[in-house]
Amino acid sequence: MVAVKDAAMDYNNTGISLLAMSHRSKPVMELFDETTDRLCSLLGIPDGYKVLWLQGGASLQFSMVPMNILNEHETADYIDTGAWSSKAIKEARNFGSVNIAGSSKNDNYTFIPKYLEQNAESVYLHITTNNTIYGTQYHVLPEVNNNGFLVADMSSDILSMPIDISDFGLIYAGAQKNMGPAGVTLVIIRKDLVGRAERQIPTMLDYATHVSKGSMFNTPPVFAVFMVNETLKWVESIGGVSAMAEKNRIKAKKLYDEIERNSLFTCPVNPDDRSLMNVPFVFDRDGLDDNDFLSHCSERNIVSLKGHRSVGGFRASIYNAMPEKGLDALISAMQTYEQDQ
Amino acid sequence: MVAVKDAAMDYNNTGISLLAMSHRSKPVMELFDETTDRLCSLLGIPDGYKVLWLQGGASLQFSMVPMNILNEHETADYIDTGAWSSKAIKEARNFGSVNIAGSSKNDNYTFIPKYLEQNAESVYLHITTNNTIYGTQYHVLPEVNNNGFLVADMSSDILSMPIDISDFGLIYAGAQKNMGPAGVTLVIIRKDLVGRAERQIPTMLDYATHVSKGSMFNTPPVFAVFMVNETLKWVESIGGVSAMAEKNRIKAKKLYDEIERNSLFTCPVNPDDRSLMNVPFVFDRDGLDDNDFLSHCSERNIVSLKGHRSVGGFRASIYNAMPEKGLDALISAMQTYEQDQ
Repeated sequence: MVAVKDAAMDYNNTGISLLAMSHRSKPVMELFDETTDRLCSLLGIPDGYKVLWLQGGASLQFSMVPMNILNEHETADYIDTGAWSSKAIKEARNFGSVNIAGSSKNDNYTFIPKYLEQNAESVYLHITTNNTIYGTQYHVLPEVNNNGFLVADMSSDILSMPIDISDFGLIYAGAQKNMGPAGVTLVIIRKDLVGRAERQIPTMLDYATHVSKGSMFNTPPVFAVFMVNETLKWVESIGGVSAMAEKNRIKAKKLYDEIERNSLFTCPVNPDDRSLMNVPFVFDRDGLDDNDFLSHCSERNIVSLKGHRSVGGFRASIYNAMPEKGLDALISAMQTYEQDQ
Repeated sequence: MVAVKDAAMDYNNTGISLLAMSHRSKPVMELFDETTDRLCSLLGIPDGYKVLWLQGGASLQFSMVPMNILNEHETADYIDTGAWSSKAIKEARNFGSVNIAGSSKNDNYTFIPKYLEQNAESVYLHITTNNTIYGTQYHVLPEVNNNGFLVADMSSDILSMPIDISDFGLIYAGAQKNMGPAGVTLVIIRKDLVGRAERQIPTMLDYATHVSKGSMFNTPPVFAVFMVNETLKWVESIGGVSAMAEKNRIKAKKLYDEIERNSLFTCPVNPDDRSLMNVPFVFDRDGLDDNDFLSHCSERNIVSLKGHRSVGGFRASIYNAMPEKGLDALISAMQTYEQDQ
């Protein structure tokens, strides 16, 4: 955070705050190039792809993706794995036909659907790689029919592990989980998909605009991109996304192991599909009070542990930035609570 | 900027960085309410209006305005006063008919058109209140036909002077000139206009979504709103927008007076329409070299003075944050340059 302070006061010894700099100035142009280069290197983004830094979050991408790459008369496959997929599906229906190729809705989204009914003509297959509310995550990517390609919302697990970009036609991610602050949205798009849809698209919602202007069509969220760059430097410093994935596996295993061991708790999610980012768990025994355990944790400075209302119980969000000692504190609280009962 | 540092490290003594806080957390909800309340108080926003904090800049509003309030079969009047108006017009044409009620294009946008040909049936009249490239500004608002209302892009002069909100149906402004950092966009909309257009609108682009969710439909640009709130506190501290307007008048008059007095320079803009935010000026004599004057200024740490390529010469941007001593330095450089010739 010292870098944030420095950037706000005197960016790179220019004597000017980054907050006051024009986005057409050399330091800001260089910042964008550096951030893009760093991301390309960390994720191994091949030549045939473009990286865009946009605004509006994944929520705007739910519309921009089909608006830009799905024609009115065409179909796209979507897998429904929770609240975020459902929103993506709702918006896609404004632009073409949507085929629900798989859904775990009837089981309260406790697993990732494996048996898919894809439409043979579908342009793409859309997945949400990690589902924050339900605590599921793709550990094996689905195969796509014919000439289709994968489109993925990676808002909550980008940079948490290596990915093979060439498996995807398009990846999008709001920055605010693993990449930086809210206010900037990453899009990685295969170049041949830019301009695919034939409809008239408002300039700001057209990927082609941002590709041709290097994400500088209008004033971009400069400070947010600065913070993304700082996060990417940190990921580099710990050894890149492979090292990050190893850390995340260790952290998640510790917590899932404790949930398994502890007589009070259970995890509702199918073991093969458990998220390394969001770990939901509930009491496994009648007569226990969620709020009492939340107070027990809160006294130990462990907060934001309440599960989403559609799952209940508890949820530990253990994104990249969560240190192992944060997990140790939670595990210790689970153990003392077990002893108290 | 100290407040920025504190917010990045430990927001309001919560022990948590604002960058790490959930947008559903109490401190963030309170920050949004406080920022909105402060803006309402500074601008005197009456009860019948809603304040929204969005993303995408004025460039996205160019589309969102007609998408939300102009039906396909309806007409809107637009006044063309430069590059930003032209872009607004281009986007509006995707959604309905546009009538150019006035334009100063043939005179390189050196004045604000006064004699308008409004369409009697037009839903609204769109203006760009300040034109950054050409240095013009509305000092008297145009009258609107019949039941129409004004829509204004105030990106570059919001908070620089008092306005009567009730003159407008909708005001929008990117934050990055007078209000804060790039990455947050203000919309002030008369409540009865929300949901006016009958078309299907993507959820994120529908004002109704953001009205019903208090700008919290998806993760908003929290840090940018924090910085807007800090800017609003500063405007309050100097006495509000009336005091700010007085400062701006004094600053602008000083510079226009020097341009008038100095034998080397002239301002191409119609005197009645000169902007208090952006002051373009050019050499009034042959044989002088723009780059030589720019170097003369640069040696005195006066930068970003090059005029836009469509106007040439020089442009001083003297937004709220520019202190009077910054202007004094420029005026002094103009005087020494005159003596050197």
